[in-house]
Amino acid sequence: MTSTAADPLPSWNDGPVKQGILAFVAKVAKEGSPDFLPPAERIAVYDNDGTLWPENPMPFQAAFAFDELNRHIVNEPKLASDPMVQAALACDLSKLLEGEHFDGLMRVLALTHAGMTTDEFRDAVEAWFKSARHPRYGRPYDELTYQPMQELLRYLQANGFKNFIVSGGGADFMRVWVERVYGIPPERVVGSTARTTFELRDSGPVLTKTLDYLFVNDKAGKPVGIHQFIGRRPTICCGNSDGDYAMLQYTTINNPRPSFGLIVHHTDGEREFAYDAETKSTGRLVEALKEAPKRGWLVVDMKRDWNTVFLSESK
Amino acid sequence: MTSTAADPLPSWNDGPVKQGILAFVAKVAKEGSPDFLPPAERIAVYDNDGTLWPENPMPFQAAFAFDELNRHIVNEPKLASDPMVQAALACDLSKLLEGEHFDGLMRVLALTHAGMTTDEFRDAVEAWFKSARHPRYGRPYDELTYQPMQELLRYLQANGFKNFIVSGGGADFMRVWVERVYGIPPERVVGSTARTTFELRDSGPVLTKTLDYLFVNDKAGKPVGIHQFIGRRPTICCGNSDGDYAMLQYTTINNPRPSFGLIVHHTDGEREFAYDAETKSTGRLVEALKEAPKRGWLVVDMKRDWNTVFLSESK
Repeated sequence: MTSTAADPLPSWNDGPVKQGILAFVAKVAKEGSPDFLPPAERIAVYDNDGTLWPENPMPFQAAFAFDELNRHIVNEPKLASDPMVQAALACDLSKLLEGEHFDGLMRVLALTHAGMTTDEFRDAVEAWFKSARHPRYGRPYDELTYQPMQELLRYLQANGFKNFIVSGGGADFMRVWVERVYGIPPERVVGSTARTTFELRDSGPVLTKTLDYLFVNDKAGKPVGIHQFIGRRPTICCGNSDGDYAMLQYTTINNPRPSFGLIVHHTDGEREFAYDAETKSTGRLVEALKEAPKRGWLVVDMKRDWNTVFLSESK
Repeated sequence: MTSTAADPLPSWNDGPVKQGILAFVAKVAKEGSPDFLPPAERIAVYDNDGTLWPENPMPFQAAFAFDELNRHIVNEPKLASDPMVQAALACDLSKLLEGEHFDGLMRVLALTHAGMTTDEFRDAVEAWFKSARHPRYGRPYDELTYQPMQELLRYLQANGFKNFIVSGGGADFMRVWVERVYGIPPERVVGSTARTTFELRDSGPVLTKTLDYLFVNDKAGKPVGIHQFIGRRPTICCGNSDGDYAMLQYTTINNPRPSFGLIVHHTDGEREFAYDAETKSTGRLVEALKEAPKRGWLVVDMKRDWNTVFLSESK
């Protein structure tokens, strides 16, 4: 294990993945190198759920939605007759995840993510992060980011990369806390979105969340979202599931620039969760893992490559 | 006229507008000031057509579209039977601008902005900027940005503001040249968009432009676009027409942060164009101008306030 003061990635054990990261950055950040990347092209995209923090036992935003449903149902008892609400309250994720785009999950998110102003939604998200605790770790959800990935974010930023979250999660949900938690400003978040409506009320301008023009930033939607929001092809892509397969391809295949793909493989059931083809949450990983050797994508073996998973763990 | 080496806005004549800009920046950028703006909140949004460059005799992107139509029609003669194509080839802007959202113009843009890959579209835009000349000035379109606004962009950036274009123009169109022309990176462009489709071809990953989910970033769409792409309320907003009215309101009304609105009023028919309520192009300005005094929005009198309009003009 390399862990000196000068090591930018102290939570990473020495090995091919850590060496691969360091070697890539060394070759692209060095002026005069044949692989030099102009700073403008240093665009790094990261999936969030399962890549920067866990997505078990369910995506954190789903936990927020279920808690919100429980809070709303007191005032709107008729919600309880919705089969998807029933599935949510029973934490029956498999029912919610049926269909190509997790339609049930989207239905529930919709019930808890629309019909309020953007300020009201932000306040609800902030309140939830203050009060909710992860069922396994008993800690606030936003303390559960992966320390090695936090180090990677900072290391790449220090080397001139712009970090962007590119997640299936809601952009409005993430933008409440990404700056505080990852040091990434809200405008560098590409997520699932729906359109708001603008009106000028007596109290001032108001944006109200709707479900119109829902854009699900997952699978083939990720390169689409990257183009729509960033407008430039990334040169680094980090993901953990087949939801990230398309953006790994978009980043690395026939890219005229040097490029880099990384997959976080969840192999550590003791400290975190172990899954790939079979998962009870989101995060199924089959196709991208199979293609990784051919494409040169580095696969993080969480158990082997990370000496720390969460901050405040004893090292 | 103030024009010393230390003057950050030498193309601006001394007067209430220039003093208003300098005073606002001085109060918000000074640590310890009661009006201090944390750097994260220094978000400045700018309309493009009519604010950073002319929108006469027609928006530059419309000129691009018409030139492209002429280029395409050789291979697709049936296009000529489309009444909107006929209007375009006759440069009948008033017909194209009928309807709440300029439906005719959008139809023509659609014919010239969809059905090709994003790379092909980028190449077409680049080629056009190299070859096309503005009918009045005889210069490449991208040399016709307003020098005073270029100075404002640089001055605000030097004071920690992030500059974002928020334009009714197409995001894909603008992102080709914004970095070169304004020093604004592609991801800081909020524009009209439609969804692309992603596929992996033998040649590599490809995004194809479609017309689906068209989002027109104009009028009430501008605050909506700002929320969707930036995710944070701006504190500076510069526009020139009623298309910018909603984002001026969104930026300045009941904003808990210090905020600043500016309207470029086209009063200089000699050096540029003179219009407000009556215009043959886009850029109608009535409501926002009427509300400016009440809201404290500064109104640039182009003839009075700018000693230079375009770069390379003799001073």
